[in-house]
Amino acid sequence: MKKGCPYGTHRVIEPKGVLPQPALKIDNNMEIYDNEILIDVQTLNIDSASFTQIKEEAGGDIEKIKEIMMDIVNTRGKHQNPVTGSGGMLIGRVEKIGPALEGKTNLKVGDKIATLVSLSLTPLRIDEILEVRKDIDQVDIRGKAILFESGIYAVLPDDIPENLALSVLDVAGAPAQTAKLVKPGDTVLVIGGAGKSGMLCLYEAKKRVGVTGKVICLGYSQESIDRVKEANLADYYIKADATNAVEVMEKIKEVTNGEMADITINCVNVPNTEMASILATKDNGLIYFFSMATSFTKAALGAEGVGKDVTMIIGNGYTKGHAEIALQIMRESEELRKIYEELYA
Amino acid sequence: MKKGCPYGTHRVIEPKGVLPQPALKIDNNMEIYDNEILIDVQTLNIDSASFTQIKEEAGGDIEKIKEIMMDIVNTRGKHQNPVTGSGGMLIGRVEKIGPALEGKTNLKVGDKIATLVSLSLTPLRIDEILEVRKDIDQVDIRGKAILFESGIYAVLPDDIPENLALSVLDVAGAPAQTAKLVKPGDTVLVIGGAGKSGMLCLYEAKKRVGVTGKVICLGYSQESIDRVKEANLADYYIKADATNAVEVMEKIKEVTNGEMADITINCVNVPNTEMASILATKDNGLIYFFSMATSFTKAALGAEGVGKDVTMIIGNGYTKGHAEIALQIMRESEELRKIYEELYA
Repeated sequence: MKKGCPYGTHRVIEPKGVLPQPALKIDNNMEIYDNEILIDVQTLNIDSASFTQIKEEAGGDIEKIKEIMMDIVNTRGKHQNPVTGSGGMLIGRVEKIGPALEGKTNLKVGDKIATLVSLSLTPLRIDEILEVRKDIDQVDIRGKAILFESGIYAVLPDDIPENLALSVLDVAGAPAQTAKLVKPGDTVLVIGGAGKSGMLCLYEAKKRVGVTGKVICLGYSQESIDRVKEANLADYYIKADATNAVEVMEKIKEVTNGEMADITINCVNVPNTEMASILATKDNGLIYFFSMATSFTKAALGAEGVGKDVTMIIGNGYTKGHAEIALQIMRESEELRKIYEELYA
Repeated sequence: MKKGCPYGTHRVIEPKGVLPQPALKIDNNMEIYDNEILIDVQTLNIDSASFTQIKEEAGGDIEKIKEIMMDIVNTRGKHQNPVTGSGGMLIGRVEKIGPALEGKTNLKVGDKIATLVSLSLTPLRIDEILEVRKDIDQVDIRGKAILFESGIYAVLPDDIPENLALSVLDVAGAPAQTAKLVKPGDTVLVIGGAGKSGMLCLYEAKKRVGVTGKVICLGYSQESIDRVKEANLADYYIKADATNAVEVMEKIKEVTNGEMADITINCVNVPNTEMASILATKDNGLIYFFSMATSFTKAALGAEGVGKDVTMIIGNGYTKGHAEIALQIMRESEELRKIYEELYA
């Protein structure tokens, strides 16, 4: 059996020497290397930008959608949309586990998993497309895929419906990082706290700051703030526009008696909220940017411009145990589960 | 005497409610607020992008350059180029210190300082432009400026020539953060280690890892690597293209016996080096991105894509004591001072 690289570089056909994601073509032969996992695929969750492009190109025609998808996989060995560059994720059952992974993985043959690495780097073979669910970007197939040694995944639990689990896993990194960072007594501000990932962060923060800490939810719409309030996820609720740095600073000053936040978690997916995050945080405090709309230069130059000695972290969607931490919230909090079921599942 | 906001919002004329940097016009009346410092300006160091634009607009004519500069300051109350948006910094002497800063600042009237906040947010009045030094983007003036309470600065030392001090201060954040992060025994990789900020980081890292640690310099050109080698700034020297993630990973694997780096400091100002930084760093390691060419999304999605549990920090140009730490290197290291004098002063 051939030995593989943890990152799957052994599967790259063209151009040589790059990683599977930027590669134009990867090997989708389903004979596994010693450190790979073979998956019997059930459903592809195509990335929303990618699926929209495919639907448009197909003029909404199901057969044409299937044709485009087959063509992508036959050409590239993976479902990476050549226009958007994006992938998606998949659900399936573990069929084979490479011997080099023994003792390194808890997976067993037969486990139902969701891969949490992008389809844009996952070797995939489609034998047949069974059903295209156009409205939710899901496609059922008969086919196989490979998970590399470095590839992350979550075992789907029996006690949480699949769609609910998937919507939680989609933002699992944020609450898991919150759980790691927050200490008793901290003042934690979650910008975008009424959103999909923000609510999970509030929950984890509140659990950890204890009675001596403070959790502040900053949201944009009164409706979503009311929802969070009803679920009692924070100690303070502030309605403000996070692109208005001065307004946010004044409001945080008020609820913290001028002390500002120890930790600010930015979960709001709109641009130009870096400065509000910086001004809301105390000197020597910490800012976690989960928003993909964050600008590196705006954050770096912004903090320097106001002479703020804060640690600013780039939100890593992955941290050890992130799937378990996020799914556990759905078991612990009835209120949050209800909100999630209503809004996202 | 009027009370001011630490960030200078009290000086904003238009539009109301924003910070001085994004403002179109700020108040450059030189009567100070209680928490401001008045500076008697000697020299403006115009940001390179801004000065290039001004020179081009003026067709290289000195009188026309002066006219454009006066016009900018008269219109905006600060020297923020309306085309590039950028500023620069200034050198001058402290003339007055607001009473609210007593006990909060070590500055004395008469101190010669360089402001380390951008001219794009600094209230400035130019009475006369004395000399334009076109080749080095410097302009001597008669005029005054205001430093806000949050504004950072460095007192220019007597024992280091002004131009050498300025070129060190330009990148002071990187070595100061390195000094804070690195612990004895660490394996530290500096990507772009042979560059202006990289060399200072190597020096600080080597001082702190001690005999049980390792410092690795990764550079692109043999000439600059040889220079660093001669100054003995690292333990290992690697010539590689930092945009080639797989090549970098293999070479770091080799010199670390597969252990990879505890801390990676990225100082290389070219795009697409996020992945090399991620693959070169061990799980639970730390990456400090100082490169302004860093893409937030490439770093965030890159780490998730390869399932790497690393902490990625956005390089903050400011940290307490950063100017002192960086200038001290020029006193400690004769070799580095010689290189700096030759290349940058």
